[in-house]
Amino acid sequence: MKRAGKINNLFIAVIGGSQCSAEDALMAEIIGKEIATHGAILICGGLGGVMEAACKGASMSGGITVGILPDDDIKRANPYVQIPIATGFGEARNSIIIKSADAVIAVSGEFGTLSEIAFALKANKPVIGLDTWSISQKGMEIKQIVRVNDASEAVKKAIALVKL
Amino acid sequence: MKRAGKINNLFIAVIGGSQCSAEDALMAEIIGKEIATHGAILICGGLGGVMEAACKGASMSGGITVGILPDDDIKRANPYVQIPIATGFGEARNSIIIKSADAVIAVSGEFGTLSEIAFALKANKPVIGLDTWSISQKGMEIKQIVRVNDASEAVKKAIALVKL
Amino acid sequence: MKRAGKINNLFIAVIGGSQCSAEDALMAEIIGKEIATHGAILICGGLGGVMEAACKGASMSGGITVGILPDDDIKRANPYVQIPIATGFGEARNSIIIKSADAVIAVSGEFGTLSEIAFALKANKPVIGLDTWSISQKGMEIKQIVRVNDASEAVKKAIALVKL
Amino acid sequence: MKRAGKINNLFIAVIGGSQCSAEDALMAEIIGKEIATHGAILICGGLGGVMEAACKGASMSGGITVGILPDDDIKRANPYVQIPIATGFGEARNSIIIKSADAVIAVSGEFGTLSEIAFALKANKPVIGLDTWSISQKGMEIKQIVRVNDASEAVKKAIALVKL
Repeated sequence: MKRAGKINNLFIAVIGGSQCSAEDALMAEIIGKEIATHGAILICGGLGGVMEAACKGASMSGGITVGILPDDDIKRANPYVQIPIATGFGEARNSIIIKSADAVIAVSGEFGTLSEIAFALKANKPVIGLDTWSISQKGMEIKQIVRVNDASEAVKKAIALVKL
Repeated sequence: MKRAGKINNLFIAVIGGSQCSAEDALMAEIIGKEIATHGAILICGGLGGVMEAACKGASMSGGITVGILPDDDIKRANPYVQIPIATGFGEARNSIIIKSADAVIAVSGEFGTLSEIAFALKANKPVIGLDTWSISQKGMEIKQIVRVNDASEAVKKAIALVKL
Repeated sequence: MKRAGKINNLFIAVIGGSQCSAEDALMAEIIGKEIATHGAILICGGLGGVMEAACKGASMSGGITVGILPDDDIKRANPYVQIPIATGFGEARNSIIIKSADAVIAVSGEFGTLSEIAFALKANKPVIGLDTWSISQKGMEIKQIVRVNDASEAVKKAIALVKL
Repeated sequence: MKRAGKINNLFIAVIGGSQCSAEDALMAEIIGKEIATHGAILICGGLGGVMEAACKGASMSGGITVGILPDDDIKRANPYVQIPIATGFGEARNSIIIKSADAVIAVSGEFGTLSEIAFALKANKPVIGLDTWSISQKGMEIKQIVRVNDASEAVKKAIALVKL
């Protein structure tokens, strides 16, 4: 699938909690930076925590950041979101983030992140996981989540696994 | 939270795959029957598999069945849905099912079911699981999913755990 | 299009303001009563004003009332909604009401009602108007809104115009 | 309301039919160009007709174009959309366009455009109309739509009327 428009970049979603540890924030910031360095566009839920750190990393490296907000207006967007989209759909906006992304990087995360992983796996999009959810059924773990330990490796894997 | 309206019943969501094993279908049908017998209303995604079996069980026992469809019209509703709602929102309709339910019973299920479990846990609603997803993070399994082995027990637990 | 399920009824949407004049409320209540008398199911936005009056009329005549709420939970449903659906989608839930209805009756109304009329006309569903919006472009009025002056006539027209 | 992010621009929505006359396309293209020239960001439904012409005008003048698509993926985005967002919500995505915009310019348009005008008026956002819908109730025309005859004037009015 080729991207439309003059900005023919990949869209990489970074998902994770709106509150997070300093460690996760640092990881997310490097992920954002790497996304920008690779010329990809960062898409996320537009709020704080992992989302804000990733947007900070990307925008400070000259990248483009898109925030798909749950809210009716853009007020709650973190200060590093350049293109804030106000959906008014609450958590159902999670499905928009996934539908608009070519690949997904999950950093830790709460139940909202789990719903996004579920939507991504259902859509058969690459999911890269850093210290994030494990899911299993009937004693068998789902192996589609590609586990990495490093922010830089996460972005490289995400880009490599995009189905073009 | 008291239900509005003359039908002051609990709403129990039954979630699971749109295709399922004969065993799961039988379990879902009994769950539907028990929901009706307890005077609760069944809400589900309105399609086949677990959803259809549960609707069949409920409607054949005189219960009310609500199907929140992903589609633009009601054509794909299973024949046992009495109140079909056409959302046109695709899988994002999963969040509507959870928001409208007082408790959730998951039977096995695919990634769509996982997204519904995630939304229910986020909303702090009771989730009863029959042979469904296990989720864990940092090596610790999430314990909020109440595991049962029996359809009748599932409905009893769901009703008992509703926060009124 | 045949209705699914054991309740093989038509779904008639009643749309209008969440606040309304005593006159409009009376009209809406009679519309609700007539919908129930004709064995149809009332679907609406679930809030006050025209919606509440229509639900009151229908439920007091033994009919079924469905309320598609903009909210995250069912608390704001008017007391005559029997099947409250909590969408969490704000005004975007207007499109669900229209997609789920076989015909639409508009009583007066504000801009939300106008959006619902627009969705209904786009979907080519019958729209019956009582003292509601007139819309025109390039000096030509849209004639698809069937104007009536009487609650009873509104319901008869709505049922007659359903594309089965 | 101050825009978040490094791109601290206004967001101007251009709404209109996915098919349109050559005259409307030309008007929309100039509107897009003027939006870019004023340093604002263009947001639209991402499809053809008025949307495509406006995106063309904006992107060829160095502006940024955002397309909020009704679809599950970005394939149908017109070639001038730089930031395509795949909502999967059908026409309900119209409410996202309006929620994300600071002002709205309507060029002619069909019923989808009418729903967007309704959402914008409900949200009390500036609506500039070029040969677009007139709406009235009880014989009184709604005056909030600011009528202009010229593409350049439309953009100037839109920017001037934004509630900052």
